[in-house]
Amino acid sequence: MERSFIEYLQRNEPADDRVPVGIGDDAAVIRLGGDCVAAVDMITDEVDFILAECDPQRIGRKALAVNLSDMAAMAARPVAALVSLLLPREGGGVLAKQLYAGMAPLARQYSTSIAGGDTNSWNGKLAISVTVLGEPTPCGLLRRSGAQQGDHVLVTGDLGGSILGKHFDFMPRVEEAITLRRDYQASAAADISDGLLIDLDRLTRASSLGVELDLEAIPISAAARELAARVGPSTALDHALADGEDFELIFTAPPRAAEQLLRDQPLGVPVTRIGVMIARPGLWRRTPHGREALEPRGFEHRFTE
Amino acid sequence: MERSFIEYLQRNEPADDRVPVGIGDDAAVIRLGGDCVAAVDMITDEVDFILAECDPQRIGRKALAVNLSDMAAMAARPVAALVSLLLPREGGGVLAKQLYAGMAPLARQYSTSIAGGDTNSWNGKLAISVTVLGEPTPCGLLRRSGAQQGDHVLVTGDLGGSILGKHFDFMPRVEEAITLRRDYQASAAADISDGLLIDLDRLTRASSLGVELDLEAIPISAAARELAARVGPSTALDHALADGEDFELIFTAPPRAAEQLLRDQPLGVPVTRIGVMIARPGLWRRTPHGREALEPRGFEHRFTE
Repeated sequence: MERSFIEYLQRNEPADDRVPVGIGDDAAVIRLGGDCVAAVDMITDEVDFILAECDPQRIGRKALAVNLSDMAAMAARPVAALVSLLLPREGGGVLAKQLYAGMAPLARQYSTSIAGGDTNSWNGKLAISVTVLGEPTPCGLLRRSGAQQGDHVLVTGDLGGSILGKHFDFMPRVEEAITLRRDYQASAAADISDGLLIDLDRLTRASSLGVELDLEAIPISAAARELAARVGPSTALDHALADGEDFELIFTAPPRAAEQLLRDQPLGVPVTRIGVMIARPGLWRRTPHGREALEPRGFEHRFTE
Repeated sequence: MERSFIEYLQRNEPADDRVPVGIGDDAAVIRLGGDCVAAVDMITDEVDFILAECDPQRIGRKALAVNLSDMAAMAARPVAALVSLLLPREGGGVLAKQLYAGMAPLARQYSTSIAGGDTNSWNGKLAISVTVLGEPTPCGLLRRSGAQQGDHVLVTGDLGGSILGKHFDFMPRVEEAITLRRDYQASAAADISDGLLIDLDRLTRASSLGVELDLEAIPISAAARELAARVGPSTALDHALADGEDFELIFTAPPRAAEQLLRDQPLGVPVTRIGVMIARPGLWRRTPHGREALEPRGFEHRFTE
């Protein structure tokens, strides 16, 4: 069965001269223009999706998209992906093809070849681990650690409530990140995978700084408002601050470049300024009376020691 | 919890100037001397090991070793690894560190940095997907498809019965493969992960050839003999032909180079000639009366459509 799936992939995956050795050998060979930028992210049944309740093609798409979003966070250009599948034994053959059918169109759209992988089955639930390999562009990579004191903090898109659908259908901000780096001196970035506050906390720690947020400026999505109205007691702002899987970019840029960016709005998706990097460590909100501390809430994988 | 594990890794993983961005950013950056050679392999509880019955350090070692063996099959030099963990919730924190403690010494031994990964937890069993990134050496890569008619077929080490221990403790044949490519004109290779016959079948298909085996020449391990004596009805030869996870190299070389190799025995591990590549497709055994067909037996992940 594994062989027939490999042959199916070989028939369906278009040739790519940047992948001189693709599916079917012990390893793939990928031609990169510079350093190798590599990220891996796994998604699993009942944590990141519920297989029983959704179209497997959306799951396949998501498995690749979360990794493309990691490339975006680095302002790297994705080139190829390796897909490691862990399939439930029953129905695994059909499921594997459905996952691939969901992944392939997104791969084409982002000029990313599926260059190889590993297919496993077990008496357990579905898990998919994708590795994306990319390369820097001439304008260099973005790190979490590159923010400077006084840089503005900005986000793409609007935030919160992705559970209502965006966590499947989001667009990884790959070209957007490269534009921000090349044309607007973006100095640091991360993608919002676990929640704005927790991901911003990681960025500010990596940059050995803190951040002062203007909570009134946070762009709140319609989904966040809908969720707040429907579920409670969290407000729409709570959802925007702490919901995971927005997969928007959070980034920093020097004040003048940030202002130019806000005037230009060159990305197709809106960019909003939400705060400023400060010397004092931690997450803070600006109030009329000074600063108040914010807790870095969001999603973390939890397990006992 | 995930953050404390990342900080643990950052403290324990030595600096490597070939990994300018390692654990802790959205992606790792790896400096390769040429094309990127990339392989991913996943191992899972109750298929590739039984967590309840063995030391997690051996599992961590194996998760990396099977991937280093894929680099060996290509005669590539490993540089860095990404580790994607799927941990059971209960005890996952301790388990993650034990897995890493088993992986790290092997990584050092093979000059491979653990450059990043992803840590997940769920209400399921343990799975580990490792991606290894490597580079070609000046003598070029080995492919499964490179064998020529008349090439001799050889293996490193002895085969069968790895379930008695070798499937945890094998040494990936990385330096050996590079020596075979550089000094003995090795033309094609694969590692024996699913069984000699099935992996050889894949190599001969990729090379659009067949193979005639001399079954009397197959190097049978002590473990294969022990297993045959203990379990039956399979013979020791059956185990050598079809047991998975030997992680020895199967490779081809032109006759003169192969003969020189057999005289030199330069690898530390013995090299044995077991057959010859022929034009007629398929796996064949040589008998006094001509050729008899062999079935490509071995391990395959099975799942229903």
